[in-house]
Amino acid sequence: MISVTLIGSGNVAYHLAHHFLKRSQICLKQIYTRNTKDLRYWKDKVSTTNSLELLEESDVTILAVSDDSIQEVSKHVKNSFVVHTSGGKSVNELKNTTNKGVFYPLQTFSKHKEVSLSEVPFCLEAENNKDLQLLKRIVKSLDSNWFEINSEQRKHLHVAAVFANNFSNHMYTLAKDICQKHNVPFQILFPLIQETSQKIVDLSPEKSQTGPAVRNDKKTIEKHVNLLSEKQKEIYKLITESIQNHGKKL
Amino acid sequence: MISVTLIGSGNVAYHLAHHFLKRSQICLKQIYTRNTKDLRYWKDKVSTTNSLELLEESDVTILAVSDDSIQEVSKHVKNSFVVHTSGGKSVNELKNTTNKGVFYPLQTFSKHKEVSLSEVPFCLEAENNKDLQLLKRIVKSLDSNWFEINSEQRKHLHVAAVFANNFSNHMYTLAKDICQKHNVPFQILFPLIQETSQKIVDLSPEKSQTGPAVRNDKKTIEKHVNLLSEKQKEIYKLITESIQNHGKKL
Repeated sequence: MISVTLIGSGNVAYHLAHHFLKRSQICLKQIYTRNTKDLRYWKDKVSTTNSLELLEESDVTILAVSDDSIQEVSKHVKNSFVVHTSGGKSVNELKNTTNKGVFYPLQTFSKHKEVSLSEVPFCLEAENNKDLQLLKRIVKSLDSNWFEINSEQRKHLHVAAVFANNFSNHMYTLAKDICQKHNVPFQILFPLIQETSQKIVDLSPEKSQTGPAVRNDKKTIEKHVNLLSEKQKEIYKLITESIQNHGKKL
Repeated sequence: MISVTLIGSGNVAYHLAHHFLKRSQICLKQIYTRNTKDLRYWKDKVSTTNSLELLEESDVTILAVSDDSIQEVSKHVKNSFVVHTSGGKSVNELKNTTNKGVFYPLQTFSKHKEVSLSEVPFCLEAENNKDLQLLKRIVKSLDSNWFEINSEQRKHLHVAAVFANNFSNHMYTLAKDICQKHNVPFQILFPLIQETSQKIVDLSPEKSQTGPAVRNDKKTIEKHVNLLSEKQKEIYKLITESIQNHGKKL
């Protein structure tokens, strides 16, 4: 049995807590949050506190707070092993004087959408092997995969995730804008979007690249550019150019 | 029973032909191609020809050729009802003097990856109701969905598809470049990519937008920009700005 203290009540803390409560190998000892609504929500499920002074010791204390709060909160944590859950921050962002680590679930979490943690890869980092093994055991109890990723690698992985998730999602948003403006139901594009995201698993994104840019179909590119707003045009041109230059590098 | 003559042997023709051969409601009468390797491939499966003079009449003749060949090939087709399969071209690109239409499967096709046509939406257009009903019957026989989309709408849908498919795929490519450069396995990102593409169905892309841009997290944005190559930087900045301006419009 691994005991866990959880600090925070955002999306990551919310999903982790719910999954921990379901696992027999994990004992969720306490949740810390300053949010009174969240305190009420968790009160009858698990021991809660809104004071870092009253934090209970556990095998691991998971700090699932916003990036900007990691330094400040961790300063006040005396527990023996503290990890944060951030993709964007180094392990040294933690200011506790005890052992440190990172327990970063690489997924996009929304409170109102259930996430199957078994499909979430955890990026782990710890200062010693014993701590690392402990984090691995937690991941295993969640039926998830883990990768050992140090702070330097994670920094770059975090930028890569911005491209893979935030920016691809914005491409969907721009597609939806165009559809709405011209009375085309956006859902026509759902199967295409899903197939595109599946294809990279079997085929790699470079080999999956289709469309006028990679074909260097200048007539279509020109026609498309003329249909777009000024801002859309700029994006269309820059990504088209990037696709074409990428082809040349290969 | 609906009889079909198919012109072309690219990805779309290949997948359509294979699905037609499996359906009892469709009789694939003939495939036209000038490619000798493809002629050999189809010879023992269906009647083939490499001469437009020898094209057999059918209820519908499907022209699944490259956008640039539609005009030239359709000029020589005397069959009674001819449709093309292109997202990017108007119905008037067809130069046959008989009935015209469009039968556009909105999906990304690769020869070496099987596509379940039941998940492909077909965008249909025809000059009269009888022809439109015929196209709908073909789509139904493939267990697919159809949408009535005219040439004007389809023009914009095609650009939207470039954003939703080609450009989101390029975001995956850029993410992979970053991972490879810093020895991070790209497959860590697969679950995130898949979740992102699923989320829009339940939540819409605007509501699914996460990340430093939409949070206006300037510190992280600056950190990210400093990790990127000049070309990547340009894309990062432009899409970040576009995400932020989009938020303001809402």
